[in-house]
Amino acid sequence: MSWMHRHLLDVDALSRPEMELLLDQAVHMEDLLDRPIKKVPALRGKLVVNLFFEPSTRTRVSFELAEKFLGADVVNWAASGSSTSKGETLRDTAWTLEAMGADAVVVRHGMPGVPWYLREKLRKASVFNAGDGAHAHPTQALLDVYTVWKHCNRSLDGLRVAIVGDVLHSRVVRSDVQAFRLLGAEVVLAGPRTLMPLETDALGAVYEPDPVKAVEGADVVYLLRIQKERALEGLYPTDDEYHRRWGADEELMARAKKGAFVMHPGPINRGVEIASAVADGPNSLILDQVRSGVAVRMALLYLCMGGMEA
Amino acid sequence: MSWMHRHLLDVDALSRPEMELLLDQAVHMEDLLDRPIKKVPALRGKLVVNLFFEPSTRTRVSFELAEKFLGADVVNWAASGSSTSKGETLRDTAWTLEAMGADAVVVRHGMPGVPWYLREKLRKASVFNAGDGAHAHPTQALLDVYTVWKHCNRSLDGLRVAIVGDVLHSRVVRSDVQAFRLLGAEVVLAGPRTLMPLETDALGAVYEPDPVKAVEGADVVYLLRIQKERALEGLYPTDDEYHRRWGADEELMARAKKGAFVMHPGPINRGVEIASAVADGPNSLILDQVRSGVAVRMALLYLCMGGMEA
Amino acid sequence: MSWMHRHLLDVDALSRPEMELLLDQAVHMEDLLDRPIKKVPALRGKLVVNLFFEPSTRTRVSFELAEKFLGADVVNWAASGSSTSKGETLRDTAWTLEAMGADAVVVRHGMPGVPWYLREKLRKASVFNAGDGAHAHPTQALLDVYTVWKHCNRSLDGLRVAIVGDVLHSRVVRSDVQAFRLLGAEVVLAGPRTLMPLETDALGAVYEPDPVKAVEGADVVYLLRIQKERALEGLYPTDDEYHRRWGADEELMARAKKGAFVMHPGPINRGVEIASAVADGPNSLILDQVRSGVAVRMALLYLCMGGMEA
Repeated sequence: MSWMHRHLLDVDALSRPEMELLLDQAVHMEDLLDRPIKKVPALRGKLVVNLFFEPSTRTRVSFELAEKFLGADVVNWAASGSSTSKGETLRDTAWTLEAMGADAVVVRHGMPGVPWYLREKLRKASVFNAGDGAHAHPTQALLDVYTVWKHCNRSLDGLRVAIVGDVLHSRVVRSDVQAFRLLGAEVVLAGPRTLMPLETDALGAVYEPDPVKAVEGADVVYLLRIQKERALEGLYPTDDEYHRRWGADEELMARAKKGAFVMHPGPINRGVEIASAVADGPNSLILDQVRSGVAVRMALLYLCMGGMEA
Repeated sequence: MSWMHRHLLDVDALSRPEMELLLDQAVHMEDLLDRPIKKVPALRGKLVVNLFFEPSTRTRVSFELAEKFLGADVVNWAASGSSTSKGETLRDTAWTLEAMGADAVVVRHGMPGVPWYLREKLRKASVFNAGDGAHAHPTQALLDVYTVWKHCNRSLDGLRVAIVGDVLHSRVVRSDVQAFRLLGAEVVLAGPRTLMPLETDALGAVYEPDPVKAVEGADVVYLLRIQKERALEGLYPTDDEYHRRWGADEELMARAKKGAFVMHPGPINRGVEIASAVADGPNSLILDQVRSGVAVRMALLYLCMGGMEA
Repeated sequence: MSWMHRHLLDVDALSRPEMELLLDQAVHMEDLLDRPIKKVPALRGKLVVNLFFEPSTRTRVSFELAEKFLGADVVNWAASGSSTSKGETLRDTAWTLEAMGADAVVVRHGMPGVPWYLREKLRKASVFNAGDGAHAHPTQALLDVYTVWKHCNRSLDGLRVAIVGDVLHSRVVRSDVQAFRLLGAEVVLAGPRTLMPLETDALGAVYEPDPVKAVEGADVVYLLRIQKERALEGLYPTDDEYHRRWGADEELMARAKKGAFVMHPGPINRGVEIASAVADGPNSLILDQVRSGVAVRMALLYLCMGGMEA
């Protein structure tokens, strides 16, 4: 079994053995994070450009650390103030990056499909999707399954995952459903009707309007971030009412399996989609997700960019 | 005598021997700045995050250089556009940074006390206070005493330091008074009444309303930066009048000891708190302070983060 | 023949043998960009500060990559949010950078002459002009001649170069005319009268009002970027009309020599100063210019900063 991908655009590009290879590699990378010297020269002399058309410090820094810990040269190309704001086409920006020597481009863009377009235009550089619109966010999904996999004896078979919240606007859900299902878990979606797409079946998951029933028997309760401007758009009444009906507090968590894990892609809104007692409780994997994010991205860059032995 | 601190939040955490150990270490670091290769691998594989909630290019770059010259990996986490602007709590930001592998966090924040709060929340990472509100700015104070100490035969005992200007809004004064006094100097404060706190005694320094008397016999005249918006707030009449009464020109400096040093934390307002003839004169230590800043921060990071032998 | 310059402020500082030495060095640097490890330690332990008072991602990143590929430590000092916006003089910023250990300052500024002023104020650091007002942009000119030189058997003698577009506001033209002429090429300028300076002769090039005649027999057609706000200022009617009269399409290119090269400093406005068929055609050197930019800047930094053998 060897790794055949140069890019990662979406989770559905991976077979189950490929994903398992990646998870195994991430374990080695995570070990590195505990060493006194967090650094391997696997990507020394390679250039990675982080091309973020939308701000996202959290995802950008996680990638940046993965790149730096592997010894790559890193350039952050922010869209504002750059050629983009001077009217340059995406295609020309991509070609420029490659002409400058980019070995990989990590791209976040508000429009779905941009990473695919870039892959087509670039001749040699790897493309990593760091989130395209509300479409996909594959590295988030990989770190999510990795985090659970570590805690569940390296198997997700038969687990029940409840994802609760604003499914409609989430770039995380589609990728997460794919990743969890690929590894044998089943996924239930919950959240206000107004924050739910029409075609939840197409996502490969069941929609359960009642959050209590959705969480019933779940091994993992995964909360999605509420963007507070949604209340102004009339999609939910108030933060407080959202919390009472959909927020994960100890009462809701009591309906899940005993010891069920709590997850969130961050940054969290305490008192809205999650109560502090739950976020900081013993079954919260939220900070482990952050740490796993660096390890999984290291593994991915390493495998796709053909790094030397670590 | 060995170094026992993992953090530096304020000057008053240090004993006199500890501060002297730090100053000795800074001498070694400053030597390095003259070498053709300004680089030691003391912090290789360590991650330092510069977490600046207020912009401060000067302090941020000085820390960043200290970190890079010691071989650390560096991430600048600006608060704007980041999770913070999405409503993340300070605590969650801190936990996220640590989960990502931060070995140290350098923090600048407008609210006094933030570095202490972070130290409490972080489990392993070092915390360095790069300025909290108008409260403390310990690395500025350390570089200030280091600069004088170098030029005064490594002893500040019995020196008279006059600090002139906007004491009320300064984050530098409190730390500077502590540092100079710890090493045996005496400090006089001067400046308009409107820019002076009520409790100057509590700072450990005397307030002398007449700038000429304050400077009389001083070994060091330390000018504070005037923020021009203070005139609009009615705290002083005009830049010109401020300069005539409180600005350091050759006439005022003639009242100090012969050869008295001139200092300023920068950036300077020429013609307001300091005349060009004084800023660029032979007794000005202003640029030496900038250079010392890098050396002192290197020494501090090295001692606190348990670097290997340089 | 050895290299005697510590700075590069403008092209006219270089003799023809010096420029040829630089071009030869750039060939070695460009080879490096194809290696699996794009990295030499020639400037290890040197500090380069990119001091950009105007945003220019493209030029800034090109310099940054050149610096990083040579192993230098790099700091980006943006003018906004920095001491500059607090009223610090340019001189004091320069002194501060040098006191912090800067071995070189790469400066972009809207005001002509700033790099010369910095060179006067700095005692030891190298100064590189990354564009001053509409005055000079020497590294752009060097990469431009390098790109043609590579493709023309390392000789520009007797070539005819037509530069078409907004000569009036271009920081590229003056430097390009100097560089092309120094190596033996002849330059014709074309573009709307409203976008042409009065003293084109002083630039060392002929103004030819008719674009077709300007391009007649040219070996290189170099398009300048149109800034769309010029239309609002009444300097040309509409993008479309500009394109029909001055834009490089296949019809205009047919008037140049067979196989004539097409160049542009980027970012390009497709359908305004250049048609896509031409920009993406077989004779376009536009992406080669981008790549050459990194190589030429590496060569320049290496020669001026006295790097060790690569």
